[in-house]
This record gives sequence, structure tokens and C-alpha cells, in this order.
Amino acid sequence: MPTTDPTKARFDLAPFEVTAQDGQARQGRLTLAHGDVHTPVFMPVGTYGTVKGMPPEAIEATGAQIILGNAYHLYIRPGLEILGLHGGLHKMMGWNKPILTDSGGYQVFSLKELRKISEEGVEFRDHKAGDKHKLTPEAIIAAQEVIGSDIMMAFDECPDLTRPRRYLEASMARTTRWAKRCLEARTRPDCALFGITQGGVDLELRQRHIEELCPLPFDGFAIGGLSVGEAKSAMYETVEAVAPTLPADRPRYLMGVGTPNDLLECIRRGVDMFDCVLPTRNGRNGQVFTSQGRRIIKHARHKKDLEPLDPNCDCYTCQNYSRSYIRHLFVNNEMLAGYLLTLHNIHYYINLVDGARAAIAAGGLDAYIARVQAGWEAGDT
Amino acid sequence: MPTTDPTKARFDLAPFEVTAQDGQARQGRLTLAHGDVHTPVFMPVGTYGTVKGMPPEAIEATGAQIILGNAYHLYIRPGLEILGLHGGLHKMMGWNKPILTDSGGYQVFSLKELRKISEEGVEFRDHKAGDKHKLTPEAIIAAQEVIGSDIMMAFDECPDLTRPRRYLEASMARTTRWAKRCLEARTRPDCALFGITQGGVDLELRQRHIEELCPLPFDGFAIGGLSVGEAKSAMYETVEAVAPTLPADRPRYLMGVGTPNDLLECIRRGVDMFDCVLPTRNGRNGQVFTSQGRRIIKHARHKKDLEPLDPNCDCYTCQNYSRSYIRHLFVNNEMLAGYLLTLHNIHYYINLVDGARAAIAAGGLDAYIARVQAGWEAGDT
Repeated sequence: MPTTDPTKARFDLAPFEVTAQDGQARQGRLTLAHGDVHTPVFMPVGTYGTVKGMPPEAIEATGAQIILGNAYHLYIRPGLEILGLHGGLHKMMGWNKPILTDSGGYQVFSLKELRKISEEGVEFRDHKAGDKHKLTPEAIIAAQEVIGSDIMMAFDECPDLTRPRRYLEASMARTTRWAKRCLEARTRPDCALFGITQGGVDLELRQRHIEELCPLPFDGFAIGGLSVGEAKSAMYETVEAVAPTLPADRPRYLMGVGTPNDLLECIRRGVDMFDCVLPTRNGRNGQVFTSQGRRIIKHARHKKDLEPLDPNCDCYTCQNYSRSYIRHLFVNNEMLAGYLLTLHNIHYYINLVDGARAAIAAGGLDAYIARVQAGWEAGDT
Repeated sequence: MPTTDPTKARFDLAPFEVTAQDGQARQGRLTLAHGDVHTPVFMPVGTYGTVKGMPPEAIEATGAQIILGNAYHLYIRPGLEILGLHGGLHKMMGWNKPILTDSGGYQVFSLKELRKISEEGVEFRDHKAGDKHKLTPEAIIAAQEVIGSDIMMAFDECPDLTRPRRYLEASMARTTRWAKRCLEARTRPDCALFGITQGGVDLELRQRHIEELCPLPFDGFAIGGLSVGEAKSAMYETVEAVAPTLPADRPRYLMGVGTPNDLLECIRRGVDMFDCVLPTRNGRNGQVFTSQGRRIIKHARHKKDLEPLDPNCDCYTCQNYSRSYIRHLFVNNEMLAGYLLTLHNIHYYINLVDGARAAIAAGGLDAYIARVQAGWEAGDT
């Protein structure tokens, strides 16, 4: 049980400075144990202690400043003992820049029938191995401290928004109590902690949760529970209403979002941090994000196409290989296709956000976004 | 039809100098269009225009001097038109060092019911797409010239050794006629051409074929038709009898061989060049070649094993990752496992042969081999 008031225990573990502003959009610098992160920032996803297929040097070459791991997945596989033996995730995977870990709330709650929620925490069965586990806010913080995350995420419930309002209110109140227990549980001064605000696209629930969570001494605040199937317009409207009401002196992280356009539209609405599996997962599946729009590499039109994936890109893939060659690798299930496509897509995302960051400082974000969006007309889809 | 006598048409496209000798073992230097190759040499296999999973820079970092492609596979996919559009395989795949291409005789003849042999060549059906193709010695040389191989291989039949002796003799006589047509067909002065001697483990057939082929002006000679299921001892005995009878002033290439021990034993018996899928294929399947013998990475004993794959290895994988981490990647089907294991295994093979090359110059090959073999006692298998 907590013995001190967590609201008084601000560690200031992740100093954040807003360095420029353009409308609601912010340019900032977040100082973490493994280095500074310039925002807005996109974080490539490396769920199991690897950004799929990529050695860390290749990730770094894309310009990535920080990557995302998942405490829930790492807790299950390889498990905390092995992470601890390595001295944490950075050393295990050979990545020396910052790491943010999602707490796994989203994953646990998506298990549905396999889990049981109580005030204490969540019991669930590993869907692969069948083992029973119990996760509490304290256990999830302990796990993230073993992982050695530069930014830990609080343990939250991401409730199914079709449930009765009474359930949603009770869930969010419990997430708030869990958030306090997370703050209370942390011990490492080099592991910052972000809170997660919920409420779906219901602005009243959102505002109530923000009022509960944001006075707490978190090092940053996430907007959770979006990009879960709602209409794009509802997502943008929610971000537009919610982001400016989060503490101005803390970074704002929109979890699990999104497409290149989502990033631009939500940077414009005041979001500082993003993560998404799209560039990596879609890359492995042959979808390419480019300055000219999306391309489907297996499309017959690329069979004899000697152009790089994106003629306006300076990534390793675009500097060295043709669409024709990458298509050949992809249709023949060659592993190198996944590597080259992932590398390009991550670079595209990073470069897109780098451009937005520069545009904010120059006061020209809207023009930048309009220019980028206009370029997307020429893609395959 | 040939209009000149190919035996008089020596181009000397791949000057070869024996720089040291230790018993039957040779150290040499082979000069090719894309650079010198120091022998003995191991060539990693990149059948479809990619060493599976590896960007060219990673292959180069293993110390590889030359890689192998397969003219038959590349002829089918992506096809000659696309290779030609790229200006050849080197440019298409971004590999600037030498490439040897197997002609595909072995692959075509392993199609069995799908192919029909005549004096002219072979008709066959692509087992994936079902298309009908006709390969002749002339077509295979033309294909390898489009690919731009530093070393092209003659088109040969690799006959099933259980067939009647009369068939084997007829087959080898035809392979000799095809070899002459290959010599006659070549036009590029930067593409050397090796002949392939057949005869299985029958020393009389072997010797007869060598007497037919070796007067021809090939830039090197391969021992084909071994490592196809015969006993290890029979393979070593055949190499021991055959290698010294091949022209001393030309490189000797043992096709498709083999294990680390096979390489050492056949270097000792006078072979200069090797290729094999073992380091790459077995790497992807979790088998590791090390100075301590083979390891099976998924073995439970490596679950908490913080050692590198091989404590005596200075490859990227061994300098940066533990067995425990690589096992975690492997058991979770993470692509990075294949990359790290392939990279280590290729490096192990290259380094093993580098050691043999140095030992030959120092007159200490037998001692080197004994030392390496003694080290293999500690592996998992």
C-alpha cells in the first residue's frame, strides 16, 4: 500500500522543454537517461526486443531517436530473469538510445475471455504457452525497471467502449488508482513514467480522466484508447479537443497512431510523440510509404521499374536498389525484401516528422503539411 | 555450330597464381573482373541474387571475397530481361566483388520427370510457374553473360550414378561436347569460364572425363557430382585421387561442399574453391558453426546463456549479442535471428578458410587442421 502521497513525489525524470510553437503544434526537447529526444518524434516499434528484422545500427541509420518495446510481451518472452541477467533491454538488444515501453495494458485487455480484472490487477493466461500470470501496477513497474526503460508507461485498462457508461466510469477510476500505485511503486531515478488518459472519443469522459490524472507527477501523458476502430474524423476531433488540455510542460504521446497523414494532422493538433507498427508491419507485407503516396511493391507495374522506392528519399534502400529488384525479392519471399522495405518505411516516417519539427520552428507547419499531402497523389493506391 | 577450334581459344580471363604449397594444399590468387580472390576460398551462396537476409555490406563484413549465384534460378526469376535492364547482377543486388554463377545443370537434372534431354540441350518445366523452357549450352552462356558473372560455369549433366554405365559414359561424352559449345559461345572478355568434371566416385570415369575436359581452355575446373549422398570417406578418397590430376595452373573448385571439416579435408587434398548452403541454410534453422563445434541455438541450455555464439569469434554477432538473446529471437520467429546466425556462420566459414590459407603459407596446414578439429569437441552435437 502507498505510504506517501504520490502527487508530491515529482521526480522530474524527463525534463521537457518546448522550443518552438506553431498554432497548437510544438517543437520540444525531452531529456532521457539514454539521451535527448527531439519532438515531435516517431518511435519505431520493437515489441519483443527487436524492431523486426533490423539490427540496431540499421535502425539508428534511419534517424530513429527512440524505439518502443512492450513490457507485457517481454515479461512473457524472454521473461524478466533473462532481461535482468543481461542488465536490461538496451544491453540485451544492443540499442543504446532511449527506449519507451508500453505497459501491456492494451495487450492484456485484448485477451478478453482469457483475463480476469480485479482491483488488485489482472490475471490472464498466456495465449501461446497457456501459463497463468497475474499483473499488478506494482509488477508492471518492476518489470519495466528490470527492462530499464527510459520511459515506462503506467498500467491502464483500455476498456471496450461499447460497454455501459457505468462500467467505463468505474474502469477509468480504477485506472487512476492504478496510476497512483505505479507512481508509488517506482524506484529507479533513470526510468521516467508517463500516465495514460482514457475515454475513447467521449470528450466528457476524456476531460474527467485528464482532470484526475494530470495533477499526478507523471513525466508525460499519453492519449490512450484511440486508433482502435473509430472513424478518422472522430480521432482527429478527439485529439484536437484533448491535446491542448494536457499539461503544456509535459510531452504528449498519442499511442498506436498512425498513418503518415495521422502523424501530420495530430502534430498540428498538439501531439509530440507517436508509435505505430504500420511502417514495419506494412513494410514486411510489401507496402511502401513514399513522398508520392503508398506503393504496393508486388504490383506488376514495378516488375521492370528501375526507380528507387521513393525518388525523393535518401535512405540506404533508395540509394542502392530498384523497385524491380525489391519486387523480385518480395515475390520470391526473400528475407532481404522485409529488411529493405522496413528500413525505407521507418526512414520515411522519421524524415516526415523531422520535416514537421523543422517546419514548426519556421512557423510553416500548415504549408509543410499541405505540400506533403499534395505529393501523395502519385502513389499506387 | 562451332566454327573455330575451342581448344585454341584460351582467353586467360582469370589469371591464377599458386603462391604457396603445403603437401597437396595450395595457396593462390585468382584475378577476376571485379577483383582478386585469394584461395583457398569459400563462396557464400546467393541463389536468387541475394545471400538470404543479408545486405551486401553485411556479407562483405564477414570477409567474403566472392559469392555464388545460380544462372538457372536467375534465368527463371527475375529473368534475363530484368537482369539486363539493371546492367547485370552486380548492379542489381549492389555487390561489387566477384560473382560466380553455377550454370544450373545440377538444378535442371534434379527436376527428373519435368525435363527432357537431347543433344541440343534440355527442355523442362519450371516447377513453380509451370512454364516450358529450353536450355542449351549457348543459352546458358548467354544468360551468364547477361548476369555478368566473373566466373561462368559450363552447362553439364550431373547424371544419376545408379544408371547403367553405358548411360553414364554417354552422358559424360555429351557434357564434354556441351563444354566445347560453352567455350565457343562466350563473347565477354570479363567473364571467365570453368569446366565441370563429372564421374561420381568412379575413379575410372572421373579420369576419363578429366582427360577429355582439361585440355580445353577453361579458366578453372570444377569437381561436380560429389556431395550428392555418397559416403564421406568416398568423397574424400575421390577428391584425393582427382584434385592432383586437374591442371596445376588452374583453380580447382569442389562444387556444393560442405561442412567445416569437409572444407579442411579437401583443402588438404588440393581444392581451392568451395561453395555450400550449409552456413546460410543451417543458420536460418538455428544451427551454429563455432570453434567449439556445432550448437543448436534453441537448446534449453542456451536459455540463460550470456556467452556469444562463439567466444573465439570476432564477428558482429559475437561481439554484440548473447546466445540467450539470439535464442529468444529464434524461438519467437524473429527475422533478426536469421540475420545474426547467417552472419556468424558465414564469418565462421570465411575465417576457417582464411586460417587454412595462412597455414599453407607457413607450411603448417596439418597442425592447423588438427588444432581446429580438436576444438570441435565442446559443441552441442
